[in-house]
Order: sequence, then structure tokens, then C-alpha cells
Amino acid sequence: MPAKSNPTTPQEEIAGAIESGVADRIVKVFREAHPADVADSLEQLDDDERGIVLDKIPQELFHELVEFLPTPNVEQHLDTLSAKEQLAVLDSMADDELVDLLQDLPDEDRPGYLAMLPLAKRVLLADLLKFPEHTAGGRMTTAYAKLDADLTVRQAIKNLSNIRDEAEILSRIFVVDRQNRILGKVLLRDLAFSKRDTPLADIMDSDQIAIQALADQEEAAQMIARYDMVALPVINDKNQLIGVITHDDAIEIIEEESTEDIERISGIGGDRGELSYLNTGVFQHFRRRFGWVLVLAFLAIISGVVLLKSEEVIKDFYILSLYMPMVVAAGGNTGSQAATMVIRAMSLGELTPAQFLRVVWKELRIGLVLGSLLGSCVGLQVYFLLPDAFNPQNLSLLKVGIVVGFSLAAQVASSTSIGATLPLLARACRLDPAVVASPAITTLVDVTGMIIYFGLAKVLLAM
Amino acid sequence: MPAKSNPTTPQEEIAGAIESGVADRIVKVFREAHPADVADSLEQLDDDERGIVLDKIPQELFHELVEFLPTPNVEQHLDTLSAKEQLAVLDSMADDELVDLLQDLPDEDRPGYLAMLPLAKRVLLADLLKFPEHTAGGRMTTAYAKLDADLTVRQAIKNLSNIRDEAEILSRIFVVDRQNRILGKVLLRDLAFSKRDTPLADIMDSDQIAIQALADQEEAAQMIARYDMVALPVINDKNQLIGVITHDDAIEIIEEESTEDIERISGIGGDRGELSYLNTGVFQHFRRRFGWVLVLAFLAIISGVVLLKSEEVIKDFYILSLYMPMVVAAGGNTGSQAATMVIRAMSLGELTPAQFLRVVWKELRIGLVLGSLLGSCVGLQVYFLLPDAFNPQNLSLLKVGIVVGFSLAAQVASSTSIGATLPLLARACRLDPAVVASPAITTLVDVTGMIIYFGLAKVLLAM
Repeated sequence: MPAKSNPTTPQEEIAGAIESGVADRIVKVFREAHPADVADSLEQLDDDERGIVLDKIPQELFHELVEFLPTPNVEQHLDTLSAKEQLAVLDSMADDELVDLLQDLPDEDRPGYLAMLPLAKRVLLADLLKFPEHTAGGRMTTAYAKLDADLTVRQAIKNLSNIRDEAEILSRIFVVDRQNRILGKVLLRDLAFSKRDTPLADIMDSDQIAIQALADQEEAAQMIARYDMVALPVINDKNQLIGVITHDDAIEIIEEESTEDIERISGIGGDRGELSYLNTGVFQHFRRRFGWVLVLAFLAIISGVVLLKSEEVIKDFYILSLYMPMVVAAGGNTGSQAATMVIRAMSLGELTPAQFLRVVWKELRIGLVLGSLLGSCVGLQVYFLLPDAFNPQNLSLLKVGIVVGFSLAAQVASSTSIGATLPLLARACRLDPAVVASPAITTLVDVTGMIIYFGLAKVLLAM
Repeated sequence: MPAKSNPTTPQEEIAGAIESGVADRIVKVFREAHPADVADSLEQLDDDERGIVLDKIPQELFHELVEFLPTPNVEQHLDTLSAKEQLAVLDSMADDELVDLLQDLPDEDRPGYLAMLPLAKRVLLADLLKFPEHTAGGRMTTAYAKLDADLTVRQAIKNLSNIRDEAEILSRIFVVDRQNRILGKVLLRDLAFSKRDTPLADIMDSDQIAIQALADQEEAAQMIARYDMVALPVINDKNQLIGVITHDDAIEIIEEESTEDIERISGIGGDRGELSYLNTGVFQHFRRRFGWVLVLAFLAIISGVVLLKSEEVIKDFYILSLYMPMVVAAGGNTGSQAATMVIRAMSLGELTPAQFLRVVWKELRIGLVLGSLLGSCVGLQVYFLLPDAFNPQNLSLLKVGIVVGFSLAAQVASSTSIGATLPLLARACRLDPAVVASPAITTLVDVTGMIIYFGLAKVLLAM
């Protein structure tokens, strides 16, 4: 092979191998690289290119990639495999990933894949598939380690060494009673360093923190973050241990939920899907954005009506146009700031709807301080610094300053309160607070801003 | 004690104990509860109340809380303690938390606390304090386990059992050469289950993934997320192992960075600080929001000037007011959507500035689809459904429909492109992309919207 400029990062090495198209080189590089990096490079390719590369690698290399590739990409390659190869792929997957894959499959493909699996696995999957996708149960894995409380350290180590490769996390081992209810946990380090005839009960702690299978996955992630856990046990309604959620799932959940918050706040709907931004098609992006754009456009007609009805006062006092966008924008900006603060605090578990009044009181004060300071700044600017060219009608700059300053203050104070209140109300009505946030608030406070501004102008300037 | 209604959650039990004010009950409940829950309840109190409760508990209980309390609360209680008690607190802290605390202390207090510590710890801290707070080095802990490559399993276990309580994560043990460079890692489970005379080299892997100490903490968190790691080793410029960042730090970093993104997108500046939303004072909240509010207000004057200059055409064609807010808002909404998508994709590590053209091309297409569909909907609404009351001048509805529809389409397409481009440009100039996002974009596209709208109206309606 001709000497290329020496690739430095693993990513570049992978990309180079893919580009070369040489099967041997691809296989060699893929074997040495971390599967997460390989999956990442494959994701960047279009579907045909990816298919060609995947056809060149041995099955067991594909098995390693499955965990890291987005489900749609896995599905696509599965379709091209023989039944035997398909079974081998499914068999190599951890049960939580297999559940995710099955959940994402088109309804007509699912039974076919399920039928391939051995009965025991089918029963297990049927149990897992019962839990909705965004619950703790829908997210858990059943590959964890548990021990009966009446064992000794020697027996415990013997039991564990049978399952050592299957259990995802051996650093947290749950100790259960005969009914499979959690009594506590034991650390692998304590097993490793204790005398072999010590009873398990002597070295276990009695930490029974666990989450109900039907609880929201976000709650599970928050618990893992809060208690710095490596694995959070999941229990059913009889308090029996049925699975665990691991720290890496928690990171994924937190990233997903943050992304969802950010997107909702900007008026982007629907599910993000597993594909990256660039690999999501134009139509799919369009679909997630058009809903709010259309709703908000027609909501903006209300502002239009107010503006139209105010044409008389604008015609009388020309200069009002100059500050109208500022009054409107200040409301939108401060309203979204307040909404964002409240939504994020709720997402981080800092706020409950019960603290409603404390939040509104706090935002009202913030709004008053923000509004009065902004109003004074701009009011003074009008009075002292307005070029004559902008005031052909020679209006009293004192009056204009007062109108602009006061309406800004009132607009900011009211927008801040509205921005803080709406997400709390939404949560109280069991809606996603982020959905009612920024864009909707911006559109609404446009109207209040114009009403305040033109109303005040009518009263004061006409005097 | 009189029987109260049975408290169910740990949180309620803690709150009940605090409320009772009875020292014995507080100590008992605090001892049984998880320190994260206790810290949470304490954080809800005001400073005086918290002081009273903390005075009632024994020192060793406070030591457990330190890790979970926000730094300002820890500082405050430290101030009330004797020098001996202060030293005991500092001594009980993990070195990464101690570094955080020292970094957050007012400059005049730091030397005093540092001077208390034994020399060896001072030297260690001086090393850690060299790294800026938001780098991998500033976030790492030095409490990790490492082993020389030439040991046997028996020697390894003996070495580890000496440090078992100090090493935060024993499930990942790094294997180093004589220069302290990482050769790979070994799992505690493999040590526990291997024959005692196996050489370490036989059971270690050769995974050398690590991060440079001066890299951004966000990069560290992304690596932990990407490779599903429990602990990421941190190396200096000589590739020597100097610390680790753990999975719980990764979660914290990801939450912090997401919060920062969300806040920047809504025009909230500065650092969030460690205190929760409700415990942050009105003035502190005000300070983080006022900057952008003021800047954006004065930027909005540009829109005002455009509007003022357009008064003539508005006077001629009254109806333009009705759709002006819609044209403006549609630009703001689609611009923020595009900006948010791009910013989030960059934060998740999906996009590099090198992919600039692919992003702009994608957003341009999305914008064209969004814009032409929205423009058609609204244009048709104007033509077919506009009540006569809104058209006193009896203008041609065909022309008005074309003006509104076309300017909406042009505004949405251009705003989407601007919204996608600005964050990429910001990143290329090494600015935080989120800072230039939504509010700034909204204000800018207001101007383009009005120019397009009134410009088109002047040409078409006057014909």
C-alpha cells in the first residue's frame, strides 16, 4: 500500500480504512479500534456505502458494533443477512438492547425476529416488552448479579464466577431474600478481600434504594445522579428485584431528556430518533418543526389585529413605531428567560408544582427589577439622546420617554411572570412544561406588549 | 414523642425531623437517610435555619454531607467551626471536592484553609489547583487504583487491599509501566477470579483510552458517555497517569453543560452556580439576565428604524400591519429552531465546523420546504378567507396574498439559514455557539423580515 500521511486519531484511521475499500485493512482497523468509534464512522456514511462496508467484515465484528450503531442502521443490515446470521446477531445482544431493537422495529417485522429466538429468551423478552419504552422497566437489563443472603463469601465467589461474563456490572452485587426482595448490596472488592468463610450478611450494606419498574426513566437517571450510583436496581410491584439500570444508561437518558427540553423550548416537536442531526432526512426535520411554526404563525395574527387597530394612534404619533419592536422583543426575551429557568429547574428535580407561589413571587421580583432598570435606561435614552430626525412631529420627549419607559417596565414584569407561570401550570395539568415554553410565550407576550404600549400612548400622548 | 401521621418518603422523614427541632431525632434520621437526601433538605432551608440544624449534629455526620451540599453552604458552616474541626472536615473530603471547595472560596480565605493542611496534602492540592476548573485536570480525583505491569495477581491483590478504602473506583484498575504511563487496565473481577500466580500482564486488556489534563471537561464527559466507561484516566503532557474522572462526574458535567446550553439559548449569561433555582437570590438571577435583555433591547431599535421608515407604505396599505407580526415571528421561530438543532448537535459531538457546508445545505433545504409550505398556507388564507373588515381599502387580495406568502417563504428560508450558520461561525471563531443563538438571531431576523415584507409590498402593491 502506498504510504499515506500518517493518520493520528482512531477516527481518522477508521475513515482512511473505509475509504480505501480494502477488506483486509478495514477488518484490521475495525478490530483494533473501539467499536464506538467504528460505529460513529459508519453512521456518517449513507445507507449504500455502509452496506458495502458491513458486507466486508466478519459477523463477530458486526456483533460488537450492534450496541453502538443506531437501531435503524442495525435493522437495515439485519435485513440483508441469512436467518442463521440474524439469530447470531440477536443472540449476541444484551437483553436491554434487544428490547430496544424490537421496540423500534416495524410492527410487521417483530414477530419474525421473535420467533427465531429460543423459548427461554422469548419469555424473558415478553416480560421486558411489557414495560413501556420510557419507563425504568423498559430501560433495564436483566444481566446483573444477585446473591442469596445466607451464603458465605466462598460460595458467593463461586456463584459469581459462573456468571462473570454475563453480568454487566459486577462491582455492585445485590443481596436478596428468598422472595427475591433486596436486602442490601455487597461490593466485589469486599468479597475479594474478605476471609472466605465470612457470611455474606457480615459484609453487605443495607442500602435498599431501588426504583419501581413503571416509574419514568428520567426519575431513574436522576436517582443514579443523585446517589452517585453505578447501578440502580429495578423492582416490581411486589418489591422483587427484576433488573438494573446502569450508569451509562443514566448518561444516555440525561442527554436524551436534556435534548428534548432544549428542542421543546425552541418549538421542535416529536421524537429525536436515534440518528444524528446530519443523518436525519430533510423531511424528518421538517416534520418536527412545521407544527409549531404553523400554530405560532396563526397565533401571530392576534398581534396583527392589535397592530392594525392601533394604526390610528401610530399615525398620530409616528415615533411609536421606533420603539414598538423593542417593547415587543423585551417581553419575548424576558419571558423565555423566566420560562427556561423554571423548566430547567423542574427537569433537574429542583422544583415541584407545590412551590408554585415561591417561584411566581421570585420571578415577579426579578421581573420588576429587570423591567424598572430597562425602562429607566431606555426612557432616559429617549429623553436625552433621541435624534430630532426621529421626532418630526416635535412631541414632548418627556412624555414619549415616560410612555416607552413605563411600557417596557410593565411589559418585562408581566412577561417574566407569564413566562414563569405557564410551565408550572403545564406541569400541574400533566403537560410537558417545555412544550408551552419560549415560542408560545413569545407570541403571547407580543400581544400584551402592544396593548400596554399603545394603550399608554393613547392616554398619555393625547393629553 | 406524639404519634404523627406516618412519614413515607425519606425526604418527608428528614423534613419532619428538621421541623421538630429535636436534636436526637435529627441525628437519628440523618444517620439512617442517604446524605444526598439530607443535603437536599438542608439546601431548602434559609441560612440561619440550616446553621441551627448543622450545630445539632455531630461532626462526622457533617463530613458525610459535605460531598452533597453546595459549596456556599459548606463554606458558611466551616466559618463557624473551630480550627481543629475545620481541619477534620477538610481531611475527610476527597481531593477533587476539596479542590472545588478551595476554588470556590473567596481569595482571602483560601490561604488560611490551605495552611491548615499537612504538607503532603498541600503539595498535592497545589498540583491539582494548577488546572483550570473546567478542564479534565481540574475535575479529576487522584483517588484511583494503579498497579505495576510486572506484578502477579497475588501481589496485585495485596497492593490493592492496602488502598481499598481510598480508591474511589476499584472496578477499573490501571496498569502502568515504570514511567507511570498507562499500558491497559485490569478488572477487579478478573483479579478475584484468577489463579493467584497469574502475571497481571496475562489478564489485563490493552485499552489505553485517556484524556489530556488540559482538555475541556465536556470532552471528558463525552468520552465516558461514548465508551460507556466507569472511570476515564487523565494523563499529563508526558502521557503519565495523574488522575481519573468518574462516571458520576460525567453525569454532573453533562447536566451542567446542558443547563448552560439551554440557558445561553434563552439569553441567560454567567455561571449557574451551585445553588438551586429557589436558593439563588433575586439579584443574582437579575445579574445573569440583564446583560442580554439590555443588548437586545437596543438592537431592536434597528427594527424600529425600519418600521418607522416603512410608515409610508403602511399608511398606503393598511392591511400590511395585520401580517407584519406573523412574518417577523415566523423568522424568529424558524431561526431559533435551526440554531437549536445545530447547537445541540455540536454539544453532543455530532458536528464539527468542518461539516459547515453540509449543515447549511441541509438547513437551506429544510428552510425552503418550511417556508414554501407556510407561505402557501397563509397566502391562500389571505386570498380565500380574509374578512372584508380587515381590507377597508379594497386591495387586490391576490396581490396581498402573494406579498404575504412570498415574504413568509423568503423570511423562513433566510432565517433558517442564518439560524444554522451563526452558531457554526461562532464555534469557528472559538465563541460559545449558544451565546449567539436564539435571542440574538430572533432580533436580527426581525430586521430582514421587515425589509423583505415592506420591500415586496412597495413593489407589488404599488403596481
